[in-house]
Amino acid sequence: MKRGNKYGTHRVIEPKGTLPQPAKKISNDMEIFENEILIDVDYLNIDSASFTQLNEEAKGDLEKIKVKILEIVEERGKMQNPVTGSGGMLIGNVEKIGVDLKDNIDLKIGDKIATLVSLSLTPLKIDKILNINPEIDRVEIEGKAILFESGIYTKLPEDMEDTLALAALDVAGAPAQVKNLVKEGNTVLILGATGKSGLMCSYMAKKMTGAKGKVIGQSRNELRAEFLRSTKFCDEVIIADVQKPVNVLEETLKANNGIEVDISINCLSISNTEMASILPVRDGGVVYFFSMATSFTRAALGAEGVGKDVTMIIGNGYTKNHANIVLNVLRESKLLRNIFEEKYT
Amino acid sequence: MKRGNKYGTHRVIEPKGTLPQPAKKISNDMEIFENEILIDVDYLNIDSASFTQLNEEAKGDLEKIKVKILEIVEERGKMQNPVTGSGGMLIGNVEKIGVDLKDNIDLKIGDKIATLVSLSLTPLKIDKILNINPEIDRVEIEGKAILFESGIYTKLPEDMEDTLALAALDVAGAPAQVKNLVKEGNTVLILGATGKSGLMCSYMAKKMTGAKGKVIGQSRNELRAEFLRSTKFCDEVIIADVQKPVNVLEETLKANNGIEVDISINCLSISNTEMASILPVRDGGVVYFFSMATSFTRAALGAEGVGKDVTMIIGNGYTKNHANIVLNVLRESKLLRNIFEEKYT
Repeated sequence: MKRGNKYGTHRVIEPKGTLPQPAKKISNDMEIFENEILIDVDYLNIDSASFTQLNEEAKGDLEKIKVKILEIVEERGKMQNPVTGSGGMLIGNVEKIGVDLKDNIDLKIGDKIATLVSLSLTPLKIDKILNINPEIDRVEIEGKAILFESGIYTKLPEDMEDTLALAALDVAGAPAQVKNLVKEGNTVLILGATGKSGLMCSYMAKKMTGAKGKVIGQSRNELRAEFLRSTKFCDEVIIADVQKPVNVLEETLKANNGIEVDISINCLSISNTEMASILPVRDGGVVYFFSMATSFTRAALGAEGVGKDVTMIIGNGYTKNHANIVLNVLRESKLLRNIFEEKYT
Repeated sequence: MKRGNKYGTHRVIEPKGTLPQPAKKISNDMEIFENEILIDVDYLNIDSASFTQLNEEAKGDLEKIKVKILEIVEERGKMQNPVTGSGGMLIGNVEKIGVDLKDNIDLKIGDKIATLVSLSLTPLKIDKILNINPEIDRVEIEGKAILFESGIYTKLPEDMEDTLALAALDVAGAPAQVKNLVKEGNTVLILGATGKSGLMCSYMAKKMTGAKGKVIGQSRNELRAEFLRSTKFCDEVIIADVQKPVNVLEETLKANNGIEVDISINCLSISNTEMASILPVRDGGVVYFFSMATSFTRAALGAEGVGKDVTMIIGNGYTKNHANIVLNVLRESKLLRNIFEEKYT
């Protein structure tokens, strides 16, 4: 056994010098290096954009999807959709731990874990695909995977179903970042407050702002607004069209005595919503983009175009302790747990 | 005269409900609203990406470029390149100030100003194109333009040439943000330190870190490194390939006793450099992307992929007082002023 690079560059076959994620092909040789972990995989949770693409290409034929997944992994050494570039995550049991890591991590052989780094950079070998559940983008397999030293993971909790934990872990970055960002007394606007990450963020934002602060949740229609009101996660609920920034600004001002908010958090999954996130924020405030549909240039030029001195943050999927934070939210809020169980498992 | 919307939405013709920048067509009627400013335009500084596109399309024929510019402004009411989407800025004299603004701004009729909002959202009417200088992307015209209430501008200073001031104002956001971000004692990595914004950022970063801190400047080859060393703006100069993140990481560590930096600032104009900006930064540090070639998703997924808990900031072209800050840098540093005069005017 030898020591590999912390970020897994020692497994990059092509092109040399890149990291495993942008690489076209990585080595899925299942002999581990001294600072790697071998996982016996139970199933893959394919990223939603990727699964949709595979499903459309195969016209819903699960056998064809199986063949395609095997082809991709055979070719690239990882399950990275060549069209969307995205991956997903996996669940499995720890089979081997490299000598270098043994005493430095809180894992032991047999632990059931979910990897929190993308499949798009995870060395994977599939022996057999057992089953595909297209409802939840899940692929049950016999196979192995490798976690690099920098790879993040979480032990699956025993007090909830795996599917529930996974649904929450999928958006773990969001509430963890909100916890760091939002202070007592802040006024916070959540765009897309009725979605998966939006609900998490609304709950966490309210917890952080306290009674002196205010959380304003945006929803796209009366039905969703009614649902959001019923959760009581937000102090105010507005209905506005996120692709019409002036509409969002006006509704926000109405809900906040004519004053711009301190922080806005974009939890939408639709494009062209940068300005709707920027306009309602006061000078000196913060705009946090959790949406992967965000355009860097639209945000940068947009803020300049309206002369807004705001700090715009790129949502990082990883924050220290984020898995625990999101699972604890489900433990704290029975209501949120029920909503997640009903909607996302 | 009536009062218009602060952001200029009252001039959007198509599609309704959008802001002037994403709009296809805005009104360039030169009768001003109560909160607008009329400018008698001297020349347009076309954004570099836009000018390059126009020039290529016209195969270098200046007459063809003239015709195309007139066509665009006639059709859209603003000089927004339909291919690149970008604009530029303009120089002119204040001709009229709306009654609502008169007592609230530091401008008077006749002042010579540069607009710091993009031409891609500025109502413009061209009577005649007098001359095009392709060397510096400048179009001399007879014409008028409108500045909205939210529009930012700066009076052109009397102690330097317009061309020098413009070259500096073009990257005004960068040093102003660095001034806010970098604290005494920080270790800062500047990627693309030998370019226009990179030099500004290096100078400002060193000023902020003080003697206890350290500024590391990246350059792509020995020639540029030698030039950067000669400026003494950086404590350390490294040569590294920004599209090879591990190379950048290793060179940075070598220059910093094996320790990751607190802050990295991406001043490059090439794509696929997100990871080179993220890898060298310590957990809890800050990555500041000033490069317009930054991909939001590559940054977001990239940081997660390597398990880096860093705050990633989208470079905002506007920060309070940014024009004064950048012009003062040129007043402070004779060396930087000389370099700018030599390279960018």
